[in-house]
Amino acid sequence: MAETYEYADFKVTFLEQYIAHVEINRPEKLNSFTDSMFNTIGAIFTRLSTSPDVRVILLSGAGPKAFTAGLDVTAASQGPVFSPSSTRDAARIAFSHNAHIAHYQACVSAIEKCTKPVIALLHGYSYGMAIDLSTACDVRLCVADAAMCVKEVDIGIAADVGTLSRLPKVVGSASWIKDVCLTARVFGAEEALQQGFVSRVLASKEEGVEVALGLARVIASKSPVAVVGTKELLNYSRDRTVEEGLKYTAVWNAAMLQTEDVKKAIFSGLKKGKTPTFEKL
Amino acid sequence: MAETYEYADFKVTFLEQYIAHVEINRPEKLNSFTDSMFNTIGAIFTRLSTSPDVRVILLSGAGPKAFTAGLDVTAASQGPVFSPSSTRDAARIAFSHNAHIAHYQACVSAIEKCTKPVIALLHGYSYGMAIDLSTACDVRLCVADAAMCVKEVDIGIAADVGTLSRLPKVVGSASWIKDVCLTARVFGAEEALQQGFVSRVLASKEEGVEVALGLARVIASKSPVAVVGTKELLNYSRDRTVEEGLKYTAVWNAAMLQTEDVKKAIFSGLKKGKTPTFEKL
Amino acid sequence: MAETYEYADFKVTFLEQYIAHVEINRPEKLNSFTDSMFNTIGAIFTRLSTSPDVRVILLSGAGPKAFTAGLDVTAASQGPVFSPSSTRDAARIAFSHNAHIAHYQACVSAIEKCTKPVIALLHGYSYGMAIDLSTACDVRLCVADAAMCVKEVDIGIAADVGTLSRLPKVVGSASWIKDVCLTARVFGAEEALQQGFVSRVLASKEEGVEVALGLARVIASKSPVAVVGTKELLNYSRDRTVEEGLKYTAVWNAAMLQTEDVKKAIFSGLKKGKTPTFEKL
Amino acid sequence: MAETYEYADFKVTFLEQYIAHVEINRPEKLNSFTDSMFNTIGAIFTRLSTSPDVRVILLSGAGPKAFTAGLDVTAASQGPVFSPSSTRDAARIAFSHNAHIAHYQACVSAIEKCTKPVIALLHGYSYGMAIDLSTACDVRLCVADAAMCVKEVDIGIAADVGTLSRLPKVVGSASWIKDVCLTARVFGAEEALQQGFVSRVLASKEEGVEVALGLARVIASKSPVAVVGTKELLNYSRDRTVEEGLKYTAVWNAAMLQTEDVKKAIFSGLKKGKTPTFEKL
Amino acid sequence: MAETYEYADFKVTFLEQYIAHVEINRPEKLNSFTDSMFNTIGAIFTRLSTSPDVRVILLSGAGPKAFTAGLDVTAASQGPVFSPSSTRDAARIAFSHNAHIAHYQACVSAIEKCTKPVIALLHGYSYGMAIDLSTACDVRLCVADAAMCVKEVDIGIAADVGTLSRLPKVVGSASWIKDVCLTARVFGAEEALQQGFVSRVLASKEEGVEVALGLARVIASKSPVAVVGTKELLNYSRDRTVEEGLKYTAVWNAAMLQTEDVKKAIFSGLKKGKTPTFEKL
Amino acid sequence: MAETYEYADFKVTFLEQYIAHVEINRPEKLNSFTDSMFNTIGAIFTRLSTSPDVRVILLSGAGPKAFTAGLDVTAASQGPVFSPSSTRDAARIAFSHNAHIAHYQACVSAIEKCTKPVIALLHGYSYGMAIDLSTACDVRLCVADAAMCVKEVDIGIAADVGTLSRLPKVVGSASWIKDVCLTARVFGAEEALQQGFVSRVLASKEEGVEVALGLARVIASKSPVAVVGTKELLNYSRDRTVEEGLKYTAVWNAAMLQTEDVKKAIFSGLKKGKTPTFEKL
Repeated sequence: MAETYEYADFKVTFLEQYIAHVEINRPEKLNSFTDSMFNTIGAIFTRLSTSPDVRVILLSGAGPKAFTAGLDVTAASQGPVFSPSSTRDAARIAFSHNAHIAHYQACVSAIEKCTKPVIALLHGYSYGMAIDLSTACDVRLCVADAAMCVKEVDIGIAADVGTLSRLPKVVGSASWIKDVCLTARVFGAEEALQQGFVSRVLASKEEGVEVALGLARVIASKSPVAVVGTKELLNYSRDRTVEEGLKYTAVWNAAMLQTEDVKKAIFSGLKKGKTPTFEKL
Repeated sequence: MAETYEYADFKVTFLEQYIAHVEINRPEKLNSFTDSMFNTIGAIFTRLSTSPDVRVILLSGAGPKAFTAGLDVTAASQGPVFSPSSTRDAARIAFSHNAHIAHYQACVSAIEKCTKPVIALLHGYSYGMAIDLSTACDVRLCVADAAMCVKEVDIGIAADVGTLSRLPKVVGSASWIKDVCLTARVFGAEEALQQGFVSRVLASKEEGVEVALGLARVIASKSPVAVVGTKELLNYSRDRTVEEGLKYTAVWNAAMLQTEDVKKAIFSGLKKGKTPTFEKL
Repeated sequence: MAETYEYADFKVTFLEQYIAHVEINRPEKLNSFTDSMFNTIGAIFTRLSTSPDVRVILLSGAGPKAFTAGLDVTAASQGPVFSPSSTRDAARIAFSHNAHIAHYQACVSAIEKCTKPVIALLHGYSYGMAIDLSTACDVRLCVADAAMCVKEVDIGIAADVGTLSRLPKVVGSASWIKDVCLTARVFGAEEALQQGFVSRVLASKEEGVEVALGLARVIASKSPVAVVGTKELLNYSRDRTVEEGLKYTAVWNAAMLQTEDVKKAIFSGLKKGKTPTFEKL
Repeated sequence: MAETYEYADFKVTFLEQYIAHVEINRPEKLNSFTDSMFNTIGAIFTRLSTSPDVRVILLSGAGPKAFTAGLDVTAASQGPVFSPSSTRDAARIAFSHNAHIAHYQACVSAIEKCTKPVIALLHGYSYGMAIDLSTACDVRLCVADAAMCVKEVDIGIAADVGTLSRLPKVVGSASWIKDVCLTARVFGAEEALQQGFVSRVLASKEEGVEVALGLARVIASKSPVAVVGTKELLNYSRDRTVEEGLKYTAVWNAAMLQTEDVKKAIFSGLKKGKTPTFEKL
Repeated sequence: MAETYEYADFKVTFLEQYIAHVEINRPEKLNSFTDSMFNTIGAIFTRLSTSPDVRVILLSGAGPKAFTAGLDVTAASQGPVFSPSSTRDAARIAFSHNAHIAHYQACVSAIEKCTKPVIALLHGYSYGMAIDLSTACDVRLCVADAAMCVKEVDIGIAADVGTLSRLPKVVGSASWIKDVCLTARVFGAEEALQQGFVSRVLASKEEGVEVALGLARVIASKSPVAVVGTKELLNYSRDRTVEEGLKYTAVWNAAMLQTEDVKKAIFSGLKKGKTPTFEKL
Repeated sequence: MAETYEYADFKVTFLEQYIAHVEINRPEKLNSFTDSMFNTIGAIFTRLSTSPDVRVILLSGAGPKAFTAGLDVTAASQGPVFSPSSTRDAARIAFSHNAHIAHYQACVSAIEKCTKPVIALLHGYSYGMAIDLSTACDVRLCVADAAMCVKEVDIGIAADVGTLSRLPKVVGSASWIKDVCLTARVFGAEEALQQGFVSRVLASKEEGVEVALGLARVIASKSPVAVVGTKELLNYSRDRTVEEGLKYTAVWNAAMLQTEDVKKAIFSGLKKGKTPTFEKL
């Protein structure tokens, strides 16, 4: 692949054709997030979203210890949100905070808005930002050692870059959601699986990457027109009435059914064993 | 029952008073759907919706092998959606596709809009349309042999007659939903039960029908005013804010509480053992 | 605590600083609800909502037998909803019913609108109103002996003070919801846990209170600014699109991040072992 | 035009190629509506919606006296809504009413859902149904003699087949809307123009038809792809947030921009004087 | 009328049977609002809403000089919103402000939620609160001397008890709305009429009361079932999609069509000249 | 002002402190829009939005002839939307179109999302993009020579960068909106004023700038906290229910009422004649 992706604190590689791997790459700090890393992850997913060379993305932490331990609190405490100018009144600080939070949210939402499916592999410390990021992904897998936590109340804030807005759309039990968000208690892989927060638990990070890659391979083999449509329509419908979902779906597919992929896929289906090749999107 | 229901490719019978059984009846083709069957199933459920002789409906496939294997792809590939006139531009084809998809959606939605509860019994091949249809039902049961699959990406399309709009309202785990929709992998009865897609698994189709009938019998014994209200209000609220749900509920029940059924039901409740008889709706 | 809470049919005590315990206190009638009790429970939670001395609330039934067995049907049958003046036409009765239902709904919604988290402990008979009330709570625990039931169809009505509007937001499996709401069958603790309706089952009521208190203690130890924000933002986002949730969150936190609690919490976090003390809200 | 449109109580003709004229044709009864006419007008507009021979539709009353004087009250008072079976309880009657009202609404909404623009020409008596129908149209013109009235409160009901849902979307002054809907007072052409309810007043019915035809001719000369899109997107956006409107618009035009009409239109625009010819939709 | 309405700073009288007149009664202070007056006006309209003796309400200021000059700024500056305890952090103050604003909003919204139509007669100084209150009314009339102003930016705040949420629903021109809200400039009767903010201008306050009374008399003569439905359905639909409006309308009228008033009204209509008498609501 | 704004095809100057003037600066081409100009205008307004030196913005065209004549059709016809790669299928082209349209929309929406009020001065040719841009502004003024037109149907498309989504929120008469959008007819200053599309007509461009500047001066003299709040809350509420608008308003003002500006403004108000000075935002 000629195109290269070089970003501070993140590693972006291609595991196979069409399958990108984004790693949060600050292992010496348990992959904790600094201010600039929000911008970077937003930029990465915005770019992957439109690259014809990408069909599915795997997101994990670099190193064995952590997906991410969350905000780098030391760094954050010197940033614009936690250290506002002391000479401004509370309204002016709020005006500024509102813009900053909206910006951080947009960076995280770039994962959800990325047109290609994103598979999160949670492992080791998976605190705070780990939940914000992974709830914006499409499929969540985790390693048996994952220690997950909606950490924000422990630093005096209600989580505001995605967890509280997305968690109710991601798992079914409202009682469990309130429990983990109000207490900031750590929950493990088995509990995450039982609650449907993740859909599979793997024994080790290596196995996790392997399984995630296998899943990615399946998705990458499908028509990219069908895949991006499926992600878009599920996300759209999740948030709206069934009627609204159906209406949007009909307009979306009015164009998308005109792909050559349908013929190729049906033809391949009739001739079992033959794998269709789909044009880039 | 004097009234008869005669429809090509479907069998409609009454298992008992008030309990209709709709069977997709094309077993030699694994109950796969042709274009005309969309119209038919829409017409059947629209009619059952207002019949005073019907209080609950069971939906299954005829024969031992399949609920439905999905679209009859061979037939569909010659229909208006997959074989548009080649002389029209992409916009005109899209205009036509939009109308066709909306029509198919309306046929499937007739199940959800049917005022009476519908119990789906999934068994054998339950692919594609099987998920579209059953997510529009109220209760989903399945047989141990059920092989379920959101098949559409395998033919190059994002599912567009209901699955993607309803699945996020039907089960809690978004990760599992994305997994099965993006991969088109088959999932079985145990997985469906664990994820809450079905609420019970039965050993055989016979046992499935028996259990579904038992469930239907319980529902048919209740006040039909209470039953249709419960279906309507749950569906309405599922898609809207709690505030909107409560407001609509108050207006709905402002009339419905004026039924004689309340007195009959309370009186019967006080005299345990006595079963109330409710007027037709 | 100087402030006292005296209410007929309810007992309000403080288990510890910041932790209130509301008990439905009509054990001789299985804590069943009369007309006036709606007003009372609404008033209690509205008051607790703004009291700076309260950070978390436990709701249970008094006595060993019941959380609540539901409406006191005998009493209700003489109330305004079930015994309207016979000289008025159906429209005028409906106008009056609408207002009454809306009022009862508002009383139950006071629990959800209460800014502080509410933990429900279901035990013994937990019928009808028990589901209306507990779905308006934040965390649901139950005792092994809990017998839960969406009872309303058994008295000829669709549940209208909250269950049908909130249950689809509280558990993931729509099939299970329809099953229990349409049949009014009793379900037990294990089923409730498996479906995510409750997040924990305790062996006895005593253990239930103890565990609920432990949970309340954890929540009460956190920043009250962070806790009320977490409840508010989860409830808001649950009902709206992710985009709307994020937008509201940014505006909310624009002010809330300006709390002293953030500094205290971060400082305590850095000095492990030290418990921060947060000002009253 | 080979295709013929024969319907009781309505006359459907083609004024020119692509321009249909629907006349409510019961002049001896001031074009008042009977039960069956709802079905008919629904059927007519549903059919015109998909006919490639139709690009714009004019709706008026037959004869000089009335657009429509509204419901044929004598007939309606014997219909299912006003004369329900006296042996059923108020809840069962309400269940039936709900379905009937929804059906009548759907018949009127067929005008709004008709993909082609509909121009209403109000003239003479334009009471009740006249407002329901014309608010579902796209452009409203009126003749100087038009006497318009939201008549429903005068027969003891709140208008329920469209006026109250659409009027707030059709004119800007809420005070005027409440005034005319709560008093059922007649308003004339000048007032209608000043309030923006109609966009032009013509001296006579003949002039009205001529002007409406001129307007229709302009619309019929444009790309039908652009025209149906403009109607659809305006209606969609009217009811939703700007963000939702833009999102739907982007998906809609993703297909529609692929029309040949764009090239034809731009090419014609560059060569002034040349009128482009667009393929049928 | 046996029932009496005694409230500080407001005068509530009955101009005729069914027609209440609420006057803001602090003329020596230009009817400016103190903190307690919010509670009072909320209580008055909540009570009028359910009184069977009330069918329509007129709202004006007492005395010749003002409808209301707005907040009593001197008083307000000592109230909880403008003078928060200086010892609390900005988040805690915001928590408290949020509750206070919501409370004031609810008091004003009691006018909109009042089931009976409310006619505002703006006259003299009509600043700030005058716009908040009158936009919550149904019909707005004004006297030629009315000096209206969205005053809030002049005291450093964005209007928060109703004007900014309701004005976009009350008049059509967004450009005019932004103009008057961003500049706080005074606008007069003619401008208000031209923009549709009021629907009629009267020469003097006396004439205003007379005309408002005439309008009220017309409304009071109609079926109260039809009138309350018309207000409710217009308000509901204004804020939602046409589809949602129609759905709610059908459920509402399913009960309301069962009124005796329909028969009375139709019978009276057939026998011109006879005025029907409708039962109290 | 040290800060400089240099952009191709746009001129950004400061007319006075806090008052920016953005001119579309391609007068030799009637200020028609090329592809790159979308990016530029988006960037300009995004930057102005957060600059503390800006409180209000005036948008006009450079030169005497045009605000903007719309898309530069010659240039656009070679751009990605109108000249897609011919080797891709209709679905892939649609996927690409969707992203491009969404991008253009975001550029235009930057005006609406700009936190500071934007005053549009329409003059001369004001076609197509002129309506897209000006409907995203807050106040619209026009010069007597303005020739306005929703031009898009004339080039075979439904307007897709804002006009169709915003026009129904900007003027009240739906009939007029449909008329001008479906016919692409030119309308002039008087008609625009009468319909409320603009709120004032000026004799010449010079007078227009002068009047706009006067308006801007008034707005710039107010508390910037109050001004940005007023814009935000009006835009938010316009698109949502009154209830939602009020809820958001309360949270917004919970922080914003804590500004020093309130005290300054009230103090100045009490001492008439003294103009308050507000800190930068």
